[in-house]
Amino acid sequence: MKDIILIGSGNVATHLGNSLKKRGFNIVQVWSKHINNAKILANRLDCESTSSIKQLKKADLYILAVKDDAINQIISQLKDITIVHTSGSIDIEVFNHRVSNYGVFYPLQTFNKNVDLDLSKTPICIEANNKKFENKLMNIARELSRNVIQLDSESRRALHIAAVFACNFSNHMYTISEKILSESNLDFRLLLPLINQTVTKLKDHNPSEIQTGPAKRNDKQLIDSHIIGIKDAKFKELYTLISNSIISHNE
Amino acid sequence: MKDIILIGSGNVATHLGNSLKKRGFNIVQVWSKHINNAKILANRLDCESTSSIKQLKKADLYILAVKDDAINQIISQLKDITIVHTSGSIDIEVFNHRVSNYGVFYPLQTFNKNVDLDLSKTPICIEANNKKFENKLMNIARELSRNVIQLDSESRRALHIAAVFACNFSNHMYTISEKILSESNLDFRLLLPLINQTVTKLKDHNPSEIQTGPAKRNDKQLIDSHIIGIKDAKFKELYTLISNSIISHNE
Repeated sequence: MKDIILIGSGNVATHLGNSLKKRGFNIVQVWSKHINNAKILANRLDCESTSSIKQLKKADLYILAVKDDAINQIISQLKDITIVHTSGSIDIEVFNHRVSNYGVFYPLQTFNKNVDLDLSKTPICIEANNKKFENKLMNIARELSRNVIQLDSESRRALHIAAVFACNFSNHMYTISEKILSESNLDFRLLLPLINQTVTKLKDHNPSEIQTGPAKRNDKQLIDSHIIGIKDAKFKELYTLISNSIISHNE
Repeated sequence: MKDIILIGSGNVATHLGNSLKKRGFNIVQVWSKHINNAKILANRLDCESTSSIKQLKKADLYILAVKDDAINQIISQLKDITIVHTSGSIDIEVFNHRVSNYGVFYPLQTFNKNVDLDLSKTPICIEANNKKFENKLMNIARELSRNVIQLDSESRRALHIAAVFACNFSNHMYTISEKILSESNLDFRLLLPLINQTVTKLKDHNPSEIQTGPAKRNDKQLIDSHIIGIKDAKFKELYTLISNSIISHNE
């Protein structure tokens, strides 16, 4: 499985394409519905580009790395090829037995095209419709990462929900901090040592063990004074609900 | 100001005591209402211990590092000494002019007694009731950290609220992840590369710029499927409220 075609040109396709090429795979072609996007990535990967599903070339493996809501529509146009999608939340059965070898190749990571990333530590979660293809996918994944696991669709969905809390929602907590600080003309970067220390502790401790703060101590007086101090009504509501969640978790 | 007495023996007193001693300050005595706790820290710092406020010795500076709700009661027992508290949320006026030199020495960090910590990057926020004492406190703080700022009580309170979001609440997001994963027999450490990458991006980007995930894309279908997939009613409610907050932030 050396010849690979990328269906998609976004964050995931870009990082996977770069890493696969570095590991000696041959990227044959990049598809995007926007030909310019296909060209940009194809240029980086020194391969062909297209915006037509009908003009897809032959390859050993097609990697479908597009937005979740485009997956169905693209699959419906495909002939019998060997294919994986890269989504954390779409069931493997989306391929609906239209093809003989299908699976999932889900890198558990937050991708931005222009932020460098070392995929070697990124867990890659593999699922396939048959054992032989699963083994092939595991081998490809192991070329990219030291952390490859087999995971069925139900577990992958739980993992994806957990990742939304751990990554997207924690980042929103930082965004709220940034907003509160900017109202007092304070720089968000003041918080970086604190944020780094919180994350560093996770290496050796479960998050539930290292919880600190007023809600952990059930310090109702301080919680109330904070709520009074918050100007934005939505942030007040979030402060209250998350504090209550911490309190009830520690009861 | 070389002779320092620690009133308190908890996480903050322990880390400040260790760092001050390393930088050549003389820790004279440790007070705790539990004499055993005072002895443990005094032993580490090679100094005396007491559980009686009346038996406090003479020193150039007293550092009051106790729980917020104990501060008032301890201050009411003190004679005219030079003193700071270390709280992010208590106003400097808590000293109520009972003493002539008073202030705040607030290290913006999350402390656990048994987790090592490099204070040199920790922002230390200084406030004092007069300029001369403020300068002295700034100089002491600069011995411990490269990141010392003067901050009035109102700004410090905003900073503390922001820190609760950025540290305590993000850690609670990790705790929820841990719980969701354990229900599927998955290891929380799977998420560490993702969490580390999220935090690494903060070095060069504001958190609002690097938000990703279904709420950022306003992908209502995926949000709804996640909410159905979450078993715990409280976590369902949090998922909904935080997603709505991200959506409205991006409108």
